Amino acid sequence: MSIKVYLAGPEVFLPNAREALDIKIALTRAAGLVPVSPGDFTIPPQPTKRAFGHAISEIDEQMMESADAIIANLTPYHGVSADTGTCYELGYMCAQNKLAYAYTNVAKDMRQRTIEYHKGEVALDAHGRLRSADGFAVEDVDMVDNLMMHGGVERRGGQVVVHDAPADRLYTDTTAFEICLKLLAERAGG
Amino acid sequence: MSIKVYLAGPEVFLPNAREALDIKIALTRAAGLVPVSPGDFTIPPQPTKRAFGHAISEIDEQMMESADAIIANLTPYHGVSADTGTCYELGYMCAQNKLAYAYTNVAKDMRQRTIEYHKGEVALDAHGRLRSADGFAVEDVDMVDNLMMHGGVERRGGQVVVHDAPADRLYTDTTAFEICLKLLAERAGG
Repeated sequence: MSIKVYLAGPEVFLPNAREALDIKIALTRAAGLVPVSPGDFTIPPQPTKRAFGHAISEIDEQMMESADAIIANLTPYHGVSADTGTCYELGYMCAQNKLAYAYTNVAKDMRQRTIEYHKGEVALDAHGRLRSADGFAVEDVDMVDNLMMHGGVERRGGQVVVHDAPADRLYTDTTAFEICLKLLAERAGG
Repeated sequence: MSIKVYLAGPEVFLPNAREALDIKIALTRAAGLVPVSPGDFTIPPQPTKRAFGHAISEIDEQMMESADAIIANLTPYHGVSADTGTCYELGYMCAQNKLAYAYTNVAKDMRQRTIEYHKGEVALDAHGRLRSADGFAVEDVDMVDNLMMHGGVERRGGQVVVHDAPADRLYTDTTAFEICLKLLAERAGG
């Protein structure tokens, strides 16, 4: 058995990206799994910025094609929700019914974070649906992020692990990631 | 020819969701395409909120499975980037190599919006990479959102249409959506 797992998350944007990725790679190997990590490649020079972006997109998709599983870091990034590239990647792997796990280092769920985004100004509408003062619906289904991600993982037998990491380790705490590794290794080996 | 197109976007959260979805559905039909629209279903009662979320996730994925194409509304929502459920869905369809188009109603690209998120406090690092004051990399590849979405669409021959909609029609302006419909109809019919 050598299950290849794609390590999706916003770590590539961190100040200490290489270190953060290497830690996840080492933990994945220690769990008996084979890491497939974005960032583990060098892009040759490209004529334009956009061509550079295309080249990364292509390599990342090839990496996903080669992998049997994904662990997605859904810790909120740049707003209420997870890194959007990570969400694309989770959908990409779920569409192929590969093994899918996810985690977040923020304990507040989608509902609570959205309420805070609206500064607490929410109320139930006539149909019992939670809405902001300007009428936007607040997703309220006991999930960590948009239901497509959380539902996509759980409906395939995966799990979404929640850990309340300290603020200064929001993107580097590996507690929840390690639980995902353990769950995936047990499932893949069972 | 009856190309079925999945209409992905944050419209389901709008105060006037039904109206906004119905307008997109009518425009899709007018373009000679068959709309597949999230929100076009009724969920039976479920024992928990999370089970309700699972039920929606399942129906949305079934809708995508039935569709030949996707048009994803990547207009920023709840932060710097697009609605995360929409990003999952775009990845889901790209993984199946279905026809993929996207649009945004915000002209500022990912780079500019991220710089504004960091209140303009960005600078090039020693490797020429743009970073925020706290060291986070700013994605700078001339794309509307994370490169996985923009790259995933363009690498499959689709297009990402940008329109600068007025603020009060950020989620309801259909100019860019209609261009996507036209491009998709031409490609599907050609």
